Amino acid sequence: MTNTSVDYTAAGVDYSKIDPLKIDAQRAAKETVGNLAHTGFTEIAASRGESAYVVDMGDFLLASITECLGTKVLIADAMRPITGKTYFDSLAQDTLAMAINDIITVGATPISVQAYWAAGSSEWFDDKQRSHDLVQGWKAACDRCQVAWGGGETPSLSGVVNANTIDLAASCIGVVRPRERLTIADKLQAGDAIVMLASSGIHANGVSLARKIAADSTEGYKAKLSDGRLYGDALLDPTVLYSPVTEALFAAGIIPHYCANITGHGWRKVMRHPGSFTYRFTDIGSVPPVLAYLQRAARMTDAEAYGTFNMGAGFALYVAAGDAAKTVEVARRTGVHAWIAGSVETGPKSVVIEPIGVTFTDADMHLRA
Amino acid sequence: MTNTSVDYTAAGVDYSKIDPLKIDAQRAAKETVGNLAHTGFTEIAASRGESAYVVDMGDFLLASITECLGTKVLIADAMRPITGKTYFDSLAQDTLAMAINDIITVGATPISVQAYWAAGSSEWFDDKQRSHDLVQGWKAACDRCQVAWGGGETPSLSGVVNANTIDLAASCIGVVRPRERLTIADKLQAGDAIVMLASSGIHANGVSLARKIAADSTEGYKAKLSDGRLYGDALLDPTVLYSPVTEALFAAGIIPHYCANITGHGWRKVMRHPGSFTYRFTDIGSVPPVLAYLQRAARMTDAEAYGTFNMGAGFALYVAAGDAAKTVEVARRTGVHAWIAGSVETGPKSVVIEPIGVTFTDADMHLRA
Repeated sequence: MTNTSVDYTAAGVDYSKIDPLKIDAQRAAKETVGNLAHTGFTEIAASRGESAYVVDMGDFLLASITECLGTKVLIADAMRPITGKTYFDSLAQDTLAMAINDIITVGATPISVQAYWAAGSSEWFDDKQRSHDLVQGWKAACDRCQVAWGGGETPSLSGVVNANTIDLAASCIGVVRPRERLTIADKLQAGDAIVMLASSGIHANGVSLARKIAADSTEGYKAKLSDGRLYGDALLDPTVLYSPVTEALFAAGIIPHYCANITGHGWRKVMRHPGSFTYRFTDIGSVPPVLAYLQRAARMTDAEAYGTFNMGAGFALYVAAGDAAKTVEVARRTGVHAWIAGSVETGPKSVVIEPIGVTFTDADMHLRA
Repeated sequence: MTNTSVDYTAAGVDYSKIDPLKIDAQRAAKETVGNLAHTGFTEIAASRGESAYVVDMGDFLLASITECLGTKVLIADAMRPITGKTYFDSLAQDTLAMAINDIITVGATPISVQAYWAAGSSEWFDDKQRSHDLVQGWKAACDRCQVAWGGGETPSLSGVVNANTIDLAASCIGVVRPRERLTIADKLQAGDAIVMLASSGIHANGVSLARKIAADSTEGYKAKLSDGRLYGDALLDPTVLYSPVTEALFAAGIIPHYCANITGHGWRKVMRHPGSFTYRFTDIGSVPPVLAYLQRAARMTDAEAYGTFNMGAGFALYVAAGDAAKTVEVARRTGVHAWIAGSVETGPKSVVIEPIGVTFTDADMHLRA
């Protein structure tokens, strides 16, 4: 998950309220670059604005990241009495996806992960079914992404974490190898195609709003979606893991020019690249029933919905136009639905979603300090 | 911090209550080793029992770890109204020390860190003085350890983390270079000397008991120690960072045979090595006033105290006997007090602390599943 809070009014965000803590921390962090001097390694400075930190180790580049899942665990706690499922196998996948889907955006192959499971009490882990689901789900996601699970921390933080829940996070290390796979900011160009990879549902952003909708409605999490499923059960569909796609792309000879993990800010994330381009969409794919329900229940305009949720697209690959069709095919062969959604043009920094008549401009985007 | 909960009765621990969740997770994690095959890298299998996970990358070994601080933050929250200090610069150092002091035990040079600061509400970060102290303290600790601060996560986990507090953790990457610096389990031998590095106080283990003592006494955190300081203020002295010592040792031509970070389990941690040795102590150094107060207030025997707290020794270096004096000198030159505390002998796995007549046996130690 990212740091952004969910907002009913996705449009007209006041970008002067950039998080002062983040600015303070980013500034201080940047000042530590000299600490690498004794190692002989150098950092890829541009990675400080990207999703993963990259250090040049000579033979390859080393990427690292730590990401938390966030409050999706609270939905699982609410749903278990309803369906009997613990959902912690799914939440394990969500947590790993937060780290892995971010680290691959810089062109890294994920190598190993560490688990961070901080419960609110030592009793939390006594629930054998739930703990076992968490372990098995974590392992299964590691296997899907071909990463080694190196270890982790499973503390009981009574008084810090709420008694009946758990703070889940993952740290991940990856390698960018060969170095040509590095996607920082220098390859994106007008004429590139935008291939979207389908999401499974809400993934892990917009969760506070999803919980509020349940709290404010009479059927709550038991509301029926257009496909007959329960709202809460569909909310807990795990985040799609996208590293099998990026690895398959490289094996097929395709190196994306840029990537964006669609997490907070919805489709506004599409323009996270520091440069100035217009991103024009002509095919928006289909919206998962759970997100269609959410938009309706929250009475959000398309601009608000597409500026908050992924609306069916969990990851954006910006590839050379000639690679677009093959990119779609490669992704689908790994089991991830994909489609050519639009293209990158010269123009003012903006996201233009033609089928719904929505445009996001630079003023709507303040992810970089 | 480690996963162990603080226990008044440090002796007679029932080692059959080994944490089933940890066993389940360790077993599942071990099964993912094959996932590295496609990378060409191999893991150092023995590192799975150690404090950091180590992968062989060819030119060097890569170590990684994620560690949390734990509940020490709650003491800071209580002390601020008393002294006006936020203490979050100290807590930043504590958090980094958890990761760095563990990663160096395998012989790694720490390279970069990521911050994980999960607050219970977005308002937590609005406290400018506290947030700034956290940032500055983090940076200062990075500078002290010559690591790059690569980034991090600063989410607001309302409903997961308690509203007025924060879950602090750090992930760290390090390199073991040259490979000969790897201290896993194969170098320790009878005849080696044990050099202890002084602690600053409680560091971060035994905190629950320390808080209980404050809650159960009339003066609480305002109790006066033997040196006139307030109990709560002394509790918040930050954990000593030991990587400057291990780096200086290598520069001086000394490679320890083994290391132990004295965290949970007090001096029982001294026998964490998987082999069977007797660790005999003749010089226990001096006990920080805050720990002397704690032992008295909790009415703990020496066995209980030395089996719970660091009692003045935060890190153990096992070096060739001929290197002992120089090890002490090198440590002191970095600003860390050190002394030759004892030696490693052939014998049953045990810790014998002669000056206080305390012996811990293998039955008292269950850190490995």
